[in-house]
Amino acid sequence: MTTKLKYPFTIPGFFYFLILVLDTSYAQSEPDTAKLEFYYNTADKIVREALNERKGYQLLFEFCAIGQRLSGSENSYKAIKWAFEKMKELDFQNVWLQPVLVPHWKRGEKETAKIIASGNLPERELEILALGGSISTPDEGITANVLEVKSFDELKVKKDEAKGKIIFFNQKLDQGLLHTFTSYSNAVNQRVFGAIEAAKYGAIGVLVRSVTTKYDNVPHTGIMYYVDSLPKVPAVSIGYLDADYLYSALLEDRELKVFMKLNCVTLPDAISYNVIGEIVGSEFPDEVIVVGGHLDSWDVGDGAHDNASGCIQIMEVLDLFKRLNLKPKRTIRCVLFINEENGSRGSKEYALFADTSAQKHVAAIESDRGAFTPVGFNVQTDSSEIIEKIRSWLSILERAGIEWIKKGGSGADTQHIKSAIARLGFVPDDQRYMDFHHSANDVFEAVHPREFELGAAAIAIMVFLLSEKGL
Amino acid sequence: MTTKLKYPFTIPGFFYFLILVLDTSYAQSEPDTAKLEFYYNTADKIVREALNERKGYQLLFEFCAIGQRLSGSENSYKAIKWAFEKMKELDFQNVWLQPVLVPHWKRGEKETAKIIASGNLPERELEILALGGSISTPDEGITANVLEVKSFDELKVKKDEAKGKIIFFNQKLDQGLLHTFTSYSNAVNQRVFGAIEAAKYGAIGVLVRSVTTKYDNVPHTGIMYYVDSLPKVPAVSIGYLDADYLYSALLEDRELKVFMKLNCVTLPDAISYNVIGEIVGSEFPDEVIVVGGHLDSWDVGDGAHDNASGCIQIMEVLDLFKRLNLKPKRTIRCVLFINEENGSRGSKEYALFADTSAQKHVAAIESDRGAFTPVGFNVQTDSSEIIEKIRSWLSILERAGIEWIKKGGSGADTQHIKSAIARLGFVPDDQRYMDFHHSANDVFEAVHPREFELGAAAIAIMVFLLSEKGL
Repeated sequence: MTTKLKYPFTIPGFFYFLILVLDTSYAQSEPDTAKLEFYYNTADKIVREALNERKGYQLLFEFCAIGQRLSGSENSYKAIKWAFEKMKELDFQNVWLQPVLVPHWKRGEKETAKIIASGNLPERELEILALGGSISTPDEGITANVLEVKSFDELKVKKDEAKGKIIFFNQKLDQGLLHTFTSYSNAVNQRVFGAIEAAKYGAIGVLVRSVTTKYDNVPHTGIMYYVDSLPKVPAVSIGYLDADYLYSALLEDRELKVFMKLNCVTLPDAISYNVIGEIVGSEFPDEVIVVGGHLDSWDVGDGAHDNASGCIQIMEVLDLFKRLNLKPKRTIRCVLFINEENGSRGSKEYALFADTSAQKHVAAIESDRGAFTPVGFNVQTDSSEIIEKIRSWLSILERAGIEWIKKGGSGADTQHIKSAIARLGFVPDDQRYMDFHHSANDVFEAVHPREFELGAAAIAIMVFLLSEKGL
Repeated sequence: MTTKLKYPFTIPGFFYFLILVLDTSYAQSEPDTAKLEFYYNTADKIVREALNERKGYQLLFEFCAIGQRLSGSENSYKAIKWAFEKMKELDFQNVWLQPVLVPHWKRGEKETAKIIASGNLPERELEILALGGSISTPDEGITANVLEVKSFDELKVKKDEAKGKIIFFNQKLDQGLLHTFTSYSNAVNQRVFGAIEAAKYGAIGVLVRSVTTKYDNVPHTGIMYYVDSLPKVPAVSIGYLDADYLYSALLEDRELKVFMKLNCVTLPDAISYNVIGEIVGSEFPDEVIVVGGHLDSWDVGDGAHDNASGCIQIMEVLDLFKRLNLKPKRTIRCVLFINEENGSRGSKEYALFADTSAQKHVAAIESDRGAFTPVGFNVQTDSSEIIEKIRSWLSILERAGIEWIKKGGSGADTQHIKSAIARLGFVPDDQRYMDFHHSANDVFEAVHPREFELGAAAIAIMVFLLSEKGL
């Protein structure tokens, strides 16, 4: 070897000198490359483990088997117990139940509605679902003429016709937009505030066309509000196809009458719980990365996409660290929030705890947009530096299909955790979500194992990078 | 007006002069902005029209109702007739049938297989499907011991055990990878070349674990080959769950025997057709943009994702131009290729026509990866300039969810059209595709309307930009 060194040595030596002079980053670049390689390898391991083992999907099956989990319901306590025991079984640390008072609304016996036979119109049952928070009808139900409108503006114009009637809010979700979350936001007002608007003009009930992308007859429920200054009127959603039918029937006979009977009751607030567990960080135990989803659901279907899948994805994030023997430098805390659907009491309670904690909340990541193929992460912060920092990890996150990092809202729960340096929302593809959302369609079978597991993997990679690098 | 002009006139005049001096791009920038605005608006119109009207989805329903469309089958001619008449009905120009000879393989009566009862093992039917191109068994079927292997290498090691047996190729598709197309490519060799490898060592039949991402018992077929230098042996795929069962049964009793009976026949080549229609370009009629999908399918299910959806998406591309009254500057030609699945004769025939045509083929775009949410376009070219040019349109393509433009293969059909300046492959999300691919699972109901329509919109926007700008 030495005999060959003399001449060739000169040239590489000179270049080596040039490198030292010209490239001051050289000293760092080698370890950085090794570190980057470690990040890529870890990301690939996470993806491979999640997709191959489908352990989260098995847990989702167990969790969905409990059924719907509306705040205060018996099932919600079964789900809390299941999650608490599962976190223990998975060897999470510091597993505890954070108590919080939640609203306790009950649907009661299944609601019914029908078009009353008159003239050429036969009697016809309508597929309806009381909106969450609605009052009951009197025992004999209500029977009234129907005023169909497409917007609050139209109702205002027709306000003199509203008195004593049931208002049929008939706005369709706009299918023409790329993102169904945008369409949903544009259409959901009629569901949330319809009863208030109707009551302003003396109406006695509300029927709302289901806010859905699916042209079936399964009604979609969701939260609705009253104000104390106005009478409360019962409010229901109606299946998409029955909304079409009712619309046509009204063209035939605008004097037709609809009967509806609701059996809802609002009980006193109930004590319930966030379920919390963690892996304590090896280097910075007092720097916390929260991963969160909401444990409660509406009281139809399994609440599989909304949000059993989010709960189990974040539990699997911690479990993936354990299965792959990854030791997070910072503490990873899994929080299953109670009561996102009708009060957000759980996340507000946790936010209070976080804000007053001696621990530093580095980030709070939410999964509550369904278990579909990962697309991106929204980052809720005013710091463009933080967004740029997270964006610089994109080539690693791409290993789980993440295409972008954008400034944007994190989610209904994590938005409250204002002490977190960054709040992040996991964003999967949203083309199918509104087919299932808040309806009996949202069952375990609607979740695809690969899409679900890739979501868990994408969040796990983000958590891994946050845990390594902090913010 | 003039009385007010005097003083204020001076300042803007000075700035106007500055703009003229400093910003030489000013003259172009205004029309460019207007043009860009036009492109964005057109993209949004295309997306809105596709998603709202779902006309393509209705056509897909009609097309899928015909059923499977294997080359040479009666159904394939029904589908050709349907497409030809539909193109006329949609007012496409220059609608014609391009004749081409295609292979004509028939499954015949449904194949059967079972494990023969022996010892503790009961008789058990196995879910199988002859592979495309397989020979039949003798009338009495074949009954033989089974040698299970996971790879050609393992078979080579165990070659002395192979003689007179049925080789069970038991490699699973690797679920651990992000992209199912990669997993598929890695696993499909056993299906395509298994019969050749088995025959090398004196085996008399082949069972192949279905190449699928779904853990059900529906077998997935696909092309397989023989070579003239070796005996031909019958080859079938076996359902995923039955492959598991057979594997376990072999652990219990490696001397078990399997019976299988196939009834396939290869008839003489049949005359068939590509179906072609177009909208002639208003400015450059001799510059052609081809949009292509394949009309044939395997002979199970509806071939809905593979590739009814591609056919209808590209037909809808032209129809969207008509519905929105967009006049393409260049000719848009829709080509439904026959025989992609077992010969690619249709695309080769069209490529020959294109290569010798006086018209210039600007681009050939293929949709043959299922009707899922759009993600990107592969561009098959050695010119980085062309890729960069197309990539510069990304913000417009994003209106239909397109996230990237990459160098990559266009597809099994358009790859043959070498005279095209660029060949492009539409790439949707691929997480669910292999659940359906080449199996009875691939039915109309497996196609989601929004995902399907967004794909049509994404391709239409690409075609629109190519038509406006050329390459």
